[in-house]
Amino acid sequence: MAKYVFGVDVGGTTVKIGYFDLEGNIIDKWEIPTRTEDDGANIIPDIAGSIMVKMAQNDMTKEDVAGVGIGVPGPVKEDGTVLVAVNLGWGKKNPNEELGELLGVPVKTANDANVAALGEMWRGGGQGHEDVVAVTLGTGVGGGIIIGGKMVAGSNGAGGEIGHIHLEDEETEQCGCKGYGCLEQYASATGIVRLAKKKLADSSKDSILRNEEVTAKAVWDAVKDGDALAVEVAEIYGKYLGKGLAAVANVVNPEVFVVGGGVSKAGRVVIDYMEPYFQKYAFPGARNAKFVLAKLGNDAGMYGSARLVLGK
Amino acid sequence: MAKYVFGVDVGGTTVKIGYFDLEGNIIDKWEIPTRTEDDGANIIPDIAGSIMVKMAQNDMTKEDVAGVGIGVPGPVKEDGTVLVAVNLGWGKKNPNEELGELLGVPVKTANDANVAALGEMWRGGGQGHEDVVAVTLGTGVGGGIIIGGKMVAGSNGAGGEIGHIHLEDEETEQCGCKGYGCLEQYASATGIVRLAKKKLADSSKDSILRNEEVTAKAVWDAVKDGDALAVEVAEIYGKYLGKGLAAVANVVNPEVFVVGGGVSKAGRVVIDYMEPYFQKYAFPGARNAKFVLAKLGNDAGMYGSARLVLGK
Repeated sequence: MAKYVFGVDVGGTTVKIGYFDLEGNIIDKWEIPTRTEDDGANIIPDIAGSIMVKMAQNDMTKEDVAGVGIGVPGPVKEDGTVLVAVNLGWGKKNPNEELGELLGVPVKTANDANVAALGEMWRGGGQGHEDVVAVTLGTGVGGGIIIGGKMVAGSNGAGGEIGHIHLEDEETEQCGCKGYGCLEQYASATGIVRLAKKKLADSSKDSILRNEEVTAKAVWDAVKDGDALAVEVAEIYGKYLGKGLAAVANVVNPEVFVVGGGVSKAGRVVIDYMEPYFQKYAFPGARNAKFVLAKLGNDAGMYGSARLVLGK
Repeated sequence: MAKYVFGVDVGGTTVKIGYFDLEGNIIDKWEIPTRTEDDGANIIPDIAGSIMVKMAQNDMTKEDVAGVGIGVPGPVKEDGTVLVAVNLGWGKKNPNEELGELLGVPVKTANDANVAALGEMWRGGGQGHEDVVAVTLGTGVGGGIIIGGKMVAGSNGAGGEIGHIHLEDEETEQCGCKGYGCLEQYASATGIVRLAKKKLADSSKDSILRNEEVTAKAVWDAVKDGDALAVEVAEIYGKYLGKGLAAVANVVNPEVFVVGGGVSKAGRVVIDYMEPYFQKYAFPGARNAKFVLAKLGNDAGMYGSARLVLGK
């Protein structure tokens, strides 16, 4: 009988690895460097080696291990095929097979934003719910959709790409996806800085933000201090984010949105400026969604990839 | 061993009932009136009686019947609880229990737009696919989301309410949902008529549409005849619909959109004017979605509710 499950979160710089009991209590976690050279050919053997050593150190047999889950920064199909993972140097690759052969235990791979959502559902802000949307407000805006406790990978691995919902026809700057007017251009950390700089340029209003470097943190700190210009920026930010999440709610009608990522470190205030617009723009029947802050931080992916192995 | 499954589609005027073999081949179908008086108290007993008679006429036992599926015009929770169905006179009600007790076979209830999607996946335009979004362009705009062959009901029965995705801040007319600028206000039959009337009023351009009653059919007929003003209307229509469906694709990344409802009777032209905008506004990874016309017409709900009983 299996007693443990491993969760792996592969980032562009480090690979986070942890192991858990089957209820999701973490027993140990550690990191190894991500060796992206040679098209990232070493990444999977490195993960295998690190897990083998940990198993040996703890007298674990293969029979003790339910499997290994992996979250990867790129689109991943249902069968574990990674279509591409630019930050790892990977083209098409199937870690389910490659790592599975090395370790001799079941391996399941999925997109990192999607497994982070699963982690937050399992042991984070979404615990107790099965219809969850995780929203990551970081350098970009990511999403992970969980329906009935299962991840929505999407037919081409693009499920949960909510950061690229088109919201603004008038946008003249281009998004990373080559589009114009994506949610991410307003609701990410860089998005709010852009909104703030625009407001500072267009307005002659006095503001704390005129005296310091404009960062996402600085904007939210200014909002908390009651800075009038920063509050105007937060309103614009909240309107875009509320509109985007309302569209998501009209599609999948989740019980809860779990809001994480760097921007959410500002706390509940991010939700407070968004929620009135969500209520305004969501279909009445879909307004039941609750908003909570993510709890697992950078460990969400590790938790979620472990959960992926255990299935529903 | 069960050999048959019943599918029921409850509308405000008639109830459509059919029965199928377990592969989804239809054996018989018929209609009974929907008696909405007395808060629709007779509807479920009427359905039960009609099915009992059909079973007796065909020497069917309970053991021959896998179950009965019902599609209802209103929000329905996972457990079959109908929250409200205004057109039937129903408040909160659970047909799974009520009809199940009368018939002594398993009953499963879901929202009519959602089961229609399931029907189109099973035996209609989406056959062969498991990640399907059905779009109904009728008096309103409805949607049904199918992921991995299973319907997304939503935590409050509002899954697939894509007609109420907010698209237009400048809208001054109110939508049926009390919002302003919903997809449905542009992409429904009434929506395209509204767009055409606005264009006729704002433009002095000659048009076939100036000489006849402006209906959705008339607009699309004029588009097919190359009427320049009607083509401008179709472009606006296509832009709104493309933008809305792109948002849906960024959330669930389906393999296929199945386009049905009265407006779609105009045929492929409706898709042709929409698809370039879908391609423009969808996330690159989600642009793989194909667009097909629905095949089952008004029978989709009957097929889908039968499929609901059989599960995945």
